[in-house]
Amino acid sequence: MEKFRKISDATRFAPEKMQKNNLFKTERMYCDLYCFEPGQVQAPHVHEESDKIYFVVDGRGLFQIGEDEMELGAEEIAIAPSGQKHGVSNRGPERLVLLVFMAPKPAHG
Amino acid sequence: MEKFRKISDATRFAPEKMQKNNLFKTERMYCDLYCFEPGQVQAPHVHEESDKIYFVVDGRGLFQIGEDEMELGAEEIAIAPSGQKHGVSNRGPERLVLLVFMAPKPAHG
Repeated sequence: MEKFRKISDATRFAPEKMQKNNLFKTERMYCDLYCFEPGQVQAPHVHEESDKIYFVVDGRGLFQIGEDEMELGAEEIAIAPSGQKHGVSNRGPERLVLLVFMAPKPAHG
Repeated sequence: MEKFRKISDATRFAPEKMQKNNLFKTERMYCDLYCFEPGQVQAPHVHEESDKIYFVVDGRGLFQIGEDEMELGAEEIAIAPSGQKHGVSNRGPERLVLLVFMAPKPAHG
């Protein structure tokens, strides 16, 4: 595993769906870059045994976490604690890039 | 715990030493903002059972991880895997702000 990475080297979008590009992965955590075209979403889901953090690198996203909903822009950050349903929407007009940390990595991938 | 935070609200420096300002904390991970004035350092140290990720929000830092050394700027990221000595120096002239993730949170604090 490379120890040093540039966000720009991991920024890749696709017209079909939001992309999850891995930056780092260990037994204890993973760190991905999520890239959303306008209109793309991460559908709400739950991890019972993992916590996730989203940091907005570029663009704006609408975050749903449990009963809460908030639109965040660059240099804003959110936590989805284990057991809480969470999802993200890019309602545009810009592309959305998120740095995402999760601990531990869920067993299902 | 607040689910949504702004980096700017957690950015606090001190003349005595680099500041670690917590953003989120769970049983599985923590997420801090580290704020370095020019000349301030995080001395090299080791966590045998935790992995740490550093993301540069602002400024430039010199990162030592194991046998590797690299200067990183904004939107660059590094991992210090468990068992590898790691440290950071802000050689200036700008202030350095790092987003730091660790999993799991070490027992000693």
